[in-house]
Amino acid sequence: MHLISNILLINFVAERQKKMQEAVLGVDLGGTHIYAGVADTQGKILNREAVSVQVQEGPARILEALIETARKAMDPAKTPGVEIRAIGVGIPGSLDTSAGICHFSPNFPGWRDIGISAPIQNALGLPTFILNDVRCATLGEQYFGAGKGFQNFVCLAIGTGIGGGLVLNGTLYIGASGGAGEVGHMCVLPDGPRCNCGSRGCMEAIAAGPAITARAQKAVQEGRSRLLAKASPDLAKLTPKDVANAALRGDTVAINILQESGRAIGIGIANLITVLNPQRVIVGGGVAQAGELLMEAIRKEVSSRVFMVAPSRYQIVATSLGPEAGLVGSATLAMLRTGLLA
Amino acid sequence: MHLISNILLINFVAERQKKMQEAVLGVDLGGTHIYAGVADTQGKILNREAVSVQVQEGPARILEALIETARKAMDPAKTPGVEIRAIGVGIPGSLDTSAGICHFSPNFPGWRDIGISAPIQNALGLPTFILNDVRCATLGEQYFGAGKGFQNFVCLAIGTGIGGGLVLNGTLYIGASGGAGEVGHMCVLPDGPRCNCGSRGCMEAIAAGPAITARAQKAVQEGRSRLLAKASPDLAKLTPKDVANAALRGDTVAINILQESGRAIGIGIANLITVLNPQRVIVGGGVAQAGELLMEAIRKEVSSRVFMVAPSRYQIVATSLGPEAGLVGSATLAMLRTGLLA
Repeated sequence: MHLISNILLINFVAERQKKMQEAVLGVDLGGTHIYAGVADTQGKILNREAVSVQVQEGPARILEALIETARKAMDPAKTPGVEIRAIGVGIPGSLDTSAGICHFSPNFPGWRDIGISAPIQNALGLPTFILNDVRCATLGEQYFGAGKGFQNFVCLAIGTGIGGGLVLNGTLYIGASGGAGEVGHMCVLPDGPRCNCGSRGCMEAIAAGPAITARAQKAVQEGRSRLLAKASPDLAKLTPKDVANAALRGDTVAINILQESGRAIGIGIANLITVLNPQRVIVGGGVAQAGELLMEAIRKEVSSRVFMVAPSRYQIVATSLGPEAGLVGSATLAMLRTGLLA
Repeated sequence: MHLISNILLINFVAERQKKMQEAVLGVDLGGTHIYAGVADTQGKILNREAVSVQVQEGPARILEALIETARKAMDPAKTPGVEIRAIGVGIPGSLDTSAGICHFSPNFPGWRDIGISAPIQNALGLPTFILNDVRCATLGEQYFGAGKGFQNFVCLAIGTGIGGGLVLNGTLYIGASGGAGEVGHMCVLPDGPRCNCGSRGCMEAIAAGPAITARAQKAVQEGRSRLLAKASPDLAKLTPKDVANAALRGDTVAINILQESGRAIGIGIANLITVLNPQRVIVGGGVAQAGELLMEAIRKEVSSRVFMVAPSRYQIVATSLGPEAGLVGSATLAMLRTGLLA
């Protein structure tokens, strides 16, 4: 009888393990929020958590918040029957991915040579992998998004900054020292505005969120746009979304501001097509959600500048994962590193 | 006795074949000359021929001249003990390499969908492979030049135009439809001069030979440089080399002309380093022979613009194959395609 119950128990455990669905946890560290989500091997998010962060809090506090958010997302009660195998984390900075260290993050003060993988792995007991956030999103697009089925494509994430990722010959290309893909810091206007990176006239300095907001604030201060003036009672809190809304309602100042961004992004994308001959350029990120007006300006600039590659040879498309690209992407990283994806 | 002499003959033939050195023929089709050279598997040119061409002669006549030059270079009397296995041809244009066709060559009028490999192969009886000329030179640098031992590097050839080649993760990257590497048509000045390609402000339109010459001619016409005025009795025949010589002799107008080119090239190279994170950028081509003054201007611009990759992570160097890069490169192509190089 004892033997039989043991056999039944063993069978039960084996059966249960067999039925457990394999999954991973993706974590996306952003400038305003930490997102964590359990994803199945089809890239579907089964449970998600988010918490807001202040970049000024410093690495120790933010890492603590990240671990807590991850722990919440992994609550077994929320995803019954799921076995989480690994954690992937997207970090907006320059990293040593094999050592699990963030060397430097332009938008996170004090993040200099901060260990990321080890504290997460120790706290949560799962193998943890890190990668630049936009490179993560690029992996997400490759396996589950607008890059699926394409051997050569480029991703741009246009938000507070402009990041990028390159898939070349079917593989994420990271360059000689892991830094490839910094498309936002291509120069598109030699004597243009100063960029946070130290150079001048980078695509990011003209086209990213803060540049859009700054031009809109200036227009309001100079009394050039009533719609923008009404958009936010506190001028300092004006957002690129406000500019996009004003543009949609026909405000010519707002339209010009977006078109100036579109032109800078278009020059950069034209350069990428000319040099890399990708099949697709995938545009995502918060600012990209400004929608068709921005995309139109981008496409117009690109077609006026690309002559070495026939127009039929490339497409410029919006991300198909939307704001979830980062989360799906960091989950994809974890799947790839643990062999859940080939 | 008959048997013995037969055995001796067979031995002699076998011995001779064993001792025959394997080699290939490289052909470099340029805007002013066709070069052909027999190369051994160490990339050493054993015998070379050159003939001048007029691009106006049209594809049929130029292909004839190319075949004759190749035939001369392969003269067995000039390279005794050498067995030529294949032919590699570098073509300055956009190609279908597998069909052996040149779709379009901006500097060769009338070269639209011209078969190259088949007529050469038929005339000379050797397997013939084609590739864009600067992509050929890039292969030469990879196996026998300044790219040897580097997994990620970018080549620029600065002459009448500016071409390029990318070695990424140890392999020549040609993009989705074979067009990758057109670095000369990156935009480095949005409202800059018209480029032959149809766009504006391409690196090539500001920095290549004809742009240098045009600025020098203008300076002479406006009486701004006595040294340049004396350089060539016929103003139309002024060359970038004349400008380089005047600059070396301290002519400030000539120095400024070269620095303007250096600045444009520097912006383009900075973009390539920022996006591709290569270990090396290798600069070659006729204009690059202007020497240190141009290289200095390039390096200065690059270091003022690249902040996403540490200066210790990249080098900007001159080709180590010099003007022979194209010939060695097309020979390298033939070696790679026939398995003489791994």
